[in-house]
Amino acid sequence: MTGQPAAHRILLSIKGLHPQRWYELLSKGREVVLEPEGEADPTIRYAVVWKQPPGLLKRLPNLQVIFSMGAGVDHILADPELPDVPIVRVVAENLTQHMVEYVCWRVLDHHRQGITYRAQQREKIWHEPPQPPASEVAVGIMGLGELGRAAAKALRAIGFTVNGWSRRERRVEGVNGFHGEAGLTPFLNATDILVVLLPLTPATEGIIDYSVLQRLRRKGPLGGPCLINAGRGRLQKEADILRALEKGVLKEASLDVFEREPLDLQSSLWTHPRVFVTPHAAATSDPAHLAPLMLQQMEAFERGEPLKNVVDRQAGY
Amino acid sequence: MTGQPAAHRILLSIKGLHPQRWYELLSKGREVVLEPEGEADPTIRYAVVWKQPPGLLKRLPNLQVIFSMGAGVDHILADPELPDVPIVRVVAENLTQHMVEYVCWRVLDHHRQGITYRAQQREKIWHEPPQPPASEVAVGIMGLGELGRAAAKALRAIGFTVNGWSRRERRVEGVNGFHGEAGLTPFLNATDILVVLLPLTPATEGIIDYSVLQRLRRKGPLGGPCLINAGRGRLQKEADILRALEKGVLKEASLDVFEREPLDLQSSLWTHPRVFVTPHAAATSDPAHLAPLMLQQMEAFERGEPLKNVVDRQAGY
Ligand SMILES: NC(=O)c1ccc[n+]([C@@H]2O[C@H](COP(=O)([O-])OP(=O)(O)OC[C@H]3O[C@@H](n4cnc5c(N)ncnc54)[C@H](OP(=O)(O)O)[C@@H]3O)[C@@H](O)[C@H]2O)c1
Ligand SMILES: NC(=O)c1ccc[n+]([C@@H]2O[C@H](COP(=O)([O-])OP(=O)(O)OC[C@H]3O[C@@H](n4cnc5c(N)ncnc54)[C@H](OP(=O)(O)O)[C@@H]3O)[C@@H](O)[C@H]2O)c1
Repeated sequence: MTGQPAAHRILLSIKGLHPQRWYELLSKGREVVLEPEGEADPTIRYAVVWKQPPGLLKRLPNLQVIFSMGAGVDHILADPELPDVPIVRVVAENLTQHMVEYVCWRVLDHHRQGITYRAQQREKIWHEPPQPPASEVAVGIMGLGELGRAAAKALRAIGFTVNGWSRRERRVEGVNGFHGEAGLTPFLNATDILVVLLPLTPATEGIIDYSVLQRLRRKGPLGGPCLINAGRGRLQKEADILRALEKGVLKEASLDVFEREPLDLQSSLWTHPRVFVTPHAAATSDPAHLAPLMLQQMEAFERGEPLKNVVDRQAGY
Repeated sequence: MTGQPAAHRILLSIKGLHPQRWYELLSKGREVVLEPEGEADPTIRYAVVWKQPPGLLKRLPNLQVIFSMGAGVDHILADPELPDVPIVRVVAENLTQHMVEYVCWRVLDHHRQGITYRAQQREKIWHEPPQPPASEVAVGIMGLGELGRAAAKALRAIGFTVNGWSRRERRVEGVNGFHGEAGLTPFLNATDILVVLLPLTPATEGIIDYSVLQRLRRKGPLGGPCLINAGRGRLQKEADILRALEKGVLKEASLDVFEREPLDLQSSLWTHPRVFVTPHAAATSDPAHLAPLMLQQMEAFERGEPLKNVVDRQAGY
């Protein structure tokens, strides 16, 4: 706390994550509260949120900026009574770095046949299956945003062929670009390993369904396509993924996000031998890196500078 | 066969790999034989070999060049009666590409806690252990040759801090360089994930022993050091690796090569929960890429051009 007027307070609203570190770090710059006071609290100017309860933010008549704790903002926009103020999302080197690692890790494990080799080791089998080089394997990234572009660059450096799909046309060095509805089928047809880094919006919800998986390159050098979803769980239809795995439409999957999180103990994804599950951990927002950036943005905003990384509410991301 | 004089024939001698494809592909340029004729065969000018029987090559009085099928030549130099002709080793984009993939794959699996996450999935545990970013993890590459330098570049692109150790001083962009005996301890002390890409020579045999493992950075962000050996099996002392794993000196290991190959069914490396075994498959020589390069080198040599990638017999690599 640095003696800001009460009307410059931050509301911190977090669900499913631990608020303690965020509270401590944001408190270095501003007074932070975990609940608004009364029906309408005029002392709060900023909200820093992850899955805030619907209706909470409309109780802040002097709210000026909403900060998302993550790169995605679907969890904020889910509130039907959301006030009409700018939403700032996370774009940060530390988060991007973690996502690049996760994507390269999962792509390489599918490419270098980790599942096969681990099974062979259990049986003490000394055998080398045919291995195509990365240059003959096409990774297709859905979503060429901050994270998709950084992942593309690292995958190129390892040697993969990279395709990308975005809403609007985008030219990214070394990436075969596709965009829009019309570009989707040619993009999928040319892809062996599909990496999903889309935001969750009305246009993308449920996009990873049987029909999309069926259009992936079936005759590629890996003997079947693989899926990696590190975007959002509700982009995918889990029943369709399981069916595609059974029907030989999909060879393997790495899923970091799920329709409902934590993943239900009853879900067959936990036990499927060709599915790798991580607990929404691909690129976690680290408060030590992000809280200071948010405080800096608040100060810059008060000096009259424009906000960075503001979400396009029309597009939903 | 293109009507070369008989005295330009190639002897093909392979142990433990399949000669068929090599035979077919080399035969496109020259006459190829699998055995010399008689005690001394003057018709053979080139030998293309992998672990040739000792004494075989001294039966070729007109031998001019020995081609190794791999990047390493320890298997050739093991012959005490080896004729004194140039030895050409493999340096090829395709092989380098495969090694870069293997190294990035294994480094990322240790870094991103693959062993932990696979164990959690078996127990259906939704839990995110702390994850340092790649920039805080130092990968130390022993051997900054063709393969080590290419691996370093890709690891840098993913975001890792990279140290390197070589015999002579080498400046590689973005790599903290160490060299020689005097550089070994500081190199190891600064390393979390050790990647071995050394050639097997009298100076390097058995180098990966308990004392080397003990000098790795114990207090690094991964909770203990990891070892990746994709060089040669006889660089490592397997009993020492197992002891280091038991004593908490080493956290995990990925081994592609072994003191004796195939790895003995009795070896505890097969079943150790923190060891990942692959069957000398990190970067396999692909005859489709390499045989044409060898034929081209023979033609260039006959036009009087200098041979490329000739081994320094004094240094042993
Ligand atoms: N698993 C995790 O730990 C984790 C961590 C961080 C983020 N994420 C997820 O990753 C997502 C991406 O983050 P980012 O920072 O890269 O986002 P971003 O910079 O906003 O990029 C989004 C990309 O998706 C494309 N896109 C959006 N809607 C589309 C549509 N209907 N059709 C085709 N393409 C569409 C955009 O196209 P344009 O280029 O045309 O705009 C853009 O290329 C986040 O929204 C979040 O959900 C997950
Ligand atoms: N597992 C597989 O599938 C596979 C496939 C291919 C190759 N390999 C192995 O990988 C090895 C490396 O291949 P490469 O093409 O990168 O070889 P390279 O170009 O000859 O490089 C060898 C590197 O090791 C260094 N070195 C040699 N002796 C040393 C010593 N006594 N102390 C310190 N450093 C020493 C060299 O130092 P200087 O720079 O000072 O010369 C050089 O940096 C091969 O020899 C082979 O054994 C394995």
